Amino acid sequence: MVELLAEVTALRQSGGLLFWDQQTYMPKAGARARGNHLAVLSKVAHEKFTAPEIGRLLERLRDWEETLPYDSDEASTVRVARREYEKATRLPPDLVVRHSRARTRAHEAWIEARQKNDYKVFRPALGEMVDIMREVADALGYEDHPLDALLDQQEPGMKTADMEGLFGELRQGLVPLVKAIAEKADAVDDSFLHQPFDRETQMEVCREAAAAVGFDLETRGRIDLSVHPFTIGFSRNDVRFTVRIDEGFFNAGFFASLHEAGHGTYMQGLPERFEQSILHEGASSGLHESQSRLWENIVGRSRAFWQFYYPRLQKRFPEQLGKVSREDFYRAVNKVEPSFIRVEADEVTYNLHIMVRFELEKAVFDRELGLDDLPGAWNEKFRNYLGITPPDDLRGCIQDIHWTFGFGGGFAGYTIGNVASVQLYEKALEEHPGLEEEFAQGEFSNLLRWMNENVHAHGAKFGPQELLERVTGRPLDAGPYLAYIKRKFSDIYGL
Amino acid sequence: MVELLAEVTALRQSGGLLFWDQQTYMPKAGARARGNHLAVLSKVAHEKFTAPEIGRLLERLRDWEETLPYDSDEASTVRVARREYEKATRLPPDLVVRHSRARTRAHEAWIEARQKNDYKVFRPALGEMVDIMREVADALGYEDHPLDALLDQQEPGMKTADMEGLFGELRQGLVPLVKAIAEKADAVDDSFLHQPFDRETQMEVCREAAAAVGFDLETRGRIDLSVHPFTIGFSRNDVRFTVRIDEGFFNAGFFASLHEAGHGTYMQGLPERFEQSILHEGASSGLHESQSRLWENIVGRSRAFWQFYYPRLQKRFPEQLGKVSREDFYRAVNKVEPSFIRVEADEVTYNLHIMVRFELEKAVFDRELGLDDLPGAWNEKFRNYLGITPPDDLRGCIQDIHWTFGFGGGFAGYTIGNVASVQLYEKALEEHPGLEEEFAQGEFSNLLRWMNENVHAHGAKFGPQELLERVTGRPLDAGPYLAYIKRKFSDIYGL
Repeated sequence: MVELLAEVTALRQSGGLLFWDQQTYMPKAGARARGNHLAVLSKVAHEKFTAPEIGRLLERLRDWEETLPYDSDEASTVRVARREYEKATRLPPDLVVRHSRARTRAHEAWIEARQKNDYKVFRPALGEMVDIMREVADALGYEDHPLDALLDQQEPGMKTADMEGLFGELRQGLVPLVKAIAEKADAVDDSFLHQPFDRETQMEVCREAAAAVGFDLETRGRIDLSVHPFTIGFSRNDVRFTVRIDEGFFNAGFFASLHEAGHGTYMQGLPERFEQSILHEGASSGLHESQSRLWENIVGRSRAFWQFYYPRLQKRFPEQLGKVSREDFYRAVNKVEPSFIRVEADEVTYNLHIMVRFELEKAVFDRELGLDDLPGAWNEKFRNYLGITPPDDLRGCIQDIHWTFGFGGGFAGYTIGNVASVQLYEKALEEHPGLEEEFAQGEFSNLLRWMNENVHAHGAKFGPQELLERVTGRPLDAGPYLAYIKRKFSDIYGL
Repeated sequence: MVELLAEVTALRQSGGLLFWDQQTYMPKAGARARGNHLAVLSKVAHEKFTAPEIGRLLERLRDWEETLPYDSDEASTVRVARREYEKATRLPPDLVVRHSRARTRAHEAWIEARQKNDYKVFRPALGEMVDIMREVADALGYEDHPLDALLDQQEPGMKTADMEGLFGELRQGLVPLVKAIAEKADAVDDSFLHQPFDRETQMEVCREAAAAVGFDLETRGRIDLSVHPFTIGFSRNDVRFTVRIDEGFFNAGFFASLHEAGHGTYMQGLPERFEQSILHEGASSGLHESQSRLWENIVGRSRAFWQFYYPRLQKRFPEQLGKVSREDFYRAVNKVEPSFIRVEADEVTYNLHIMVRFELEKAVFDRELGLDDLPGAWNEKFRNYLGITPPDDLRGCIQDIHWTFGFGGGFAGYTIGNVASVQLYEKALEEHPGLEEEFAQGEFSNLLRWMNENVHAHGAKFGPQELLERVTGRPLDAGPYLAYIKRKFSDIYGL
């Protein structure tokens, strides 16, 4: 079975390279053939993975599996393979094809809706997508709520009820904080971040910072440019990420680089022995995001980090930053400002963007909200949580590409990642109380090693809740995250 | 069937991208996983292509095929698919595996032999390879000579006897010419080509020249750097080649670029409607080489080309070439000098390098030559044909990588390409007598269009002999090639 799964993994990772190339170096006209190639690779991988032979092998291995420790490589391989096999085989081929066609149509409609800045253009395709996702949820099966089935595809074992509890706590903690900060909006000036920053130098800085925090650029990774930053690995020894450089704004490139480097360290940290195995993955989207947010925000937006890196950055950009103090710079990269676009949101407001989407998805699934009323409901939630009203659909409910892929559970990982990043970091801090002094010296290896040993080392063995319980003793918990946010931003804004 | 073949094509082209990336941008440590991925893609493509379903379909299509014109797309697809299917299914899986292992061992031994500059280190692995290639030839089947079976894999329909006739004529024509030129060796000075030429500027010149002759770099192609130049296409709309820049020698980068651009125009010139078809290939290695040699030598080393391009080149390299006359430059890039290394050989001596290899392969297959005596036989042939004796194995019989892949027929395409390039060019010249005046104006589109319409348009429909007969009215013919070489070099060397 290991061999059969290795073939599936190889086909998927090959598809990954085709995707990477599509986003980076592919000549424009190559797009159509590339689309065909990707479709064939994913079809063949699916065929191989859902072959009856795999099902029979999984059945036959059941007794053996039960004699093995739950967390052993062997038992975990069988368990994860069975979970994925069941998901893959529960979807009737006809539904898979209809889903794939609906994606294509939704993508086209979404592009047009964005051009026309009009949700109504997207509405019919979105309706079709919602219907299909209901069917998908039914086919996959669930105990409590159809969204559970969809959420489980991204975050194995996570329930809709877990997410609701989490968002409830976040709402209580964050909405008042955002209001309090809004009243002191002028306390932080970040205008100097909006100046011309030379593209080449920015790219060098991105490389330097990614390498400094421990992303191996020498022999096991690379950084390139693309329109949307992403990280992808074809093995732990070939991990690549991309950034987008904005010549008029420092944050866009730099923090994307630390963010993607975080994903990259997860992939590079997977155990060598998993290389061709189904365990050669992170635990979930959310856990992956915990690593990117850790390095982007907890480390990359900390005073300690800039104690180390600011003098270096000033040398690269003497004209722009020569006269800006380190403290002012630290405050600027942490400026909080309610805004319409998720991908531009700061650390405090980001989860509110996710909450809006999650609540709307659930209301649609519960048939409490009709799709015609989606933009209105979106805008109302923005008013309530962020105190601002999106002026149009482009800055409202058609900003994300996610609903062209599916509908339901696709955003949860972002918030899980933010919350888990603090929970994991505080555990690491318990064991290494000197971490921040180390950051100030440009020393990040103790934190990285801790993540290697406690998170990356398990690959895809455990779901996110399982992993967090094993590592921190508790399931996902908003407490540490809220405490961290309040502490940090009360200090910055003098609340 | 078209759909099944499209899957095979997609898997192969995907493997192509993995190879391209391996040679250009892959982080070093990614090599092992990449090897696995390539092996899986080629295994799965082979499985799909040799599936009994394909065999049954080919049987069922036989009657239909016979009602169709031979050169129709449909009949050609079935014919080419059947030919390839039969080849693929005639090889027992066990032999395929042993061949693949022998390649790995041969590659390792070859690397070590090169490090030690000692053929004896390579000898055992080469012996194993020769035995396996005999088995391969027997499995594939042949009428006259086992080499026919191997040659047919590269050059469908070409026979060993054809090659012997061809080399016989070339030997008669070229050996005396090489001697005559050697006596006037000092008539051409190319020392100014061996100076420092800035890497970036060379790369710009490579791009400019490739684009000038009609390789589409804008939306359908790209050029990158790699250790060994090569061209690869993932569809007619995504064709890429690489060059290697030598900062101390102008020719290495520039003529590699024109050479690879020639391969590139063939791939970009394949008909759109073949895109996912088995016909989306050139006619043979040799015909492919005819296009690269056409642009590298017949065009790129012509007076007319430099009439157009030399002023531009001088502007790029004023220090190096400002005082060199166009005529001296033309003579320099055409300097003839018997040398040991095939890939550095000039237009006149190149085919003699190929002839040595072909004759030795045949002698080994005929058991007239034992492998222990190979280096001696190699050196003797060099003395006879080129008047020089290789001082060691590295500059002798272990210089090429080809014998680590197989043994027999692997070099023929180079000479077929040289000879066919002139045969095709003269036909084009008949129809467009003003071609050279056009080159002098930087105008290459009539020649390119002629090749598009007469060569590229057929894809893999015809074998090389078939195609040449259709286009020029004759099979491969050394006559035009020898006349061209004698005319050109008698002029340059005043013979």
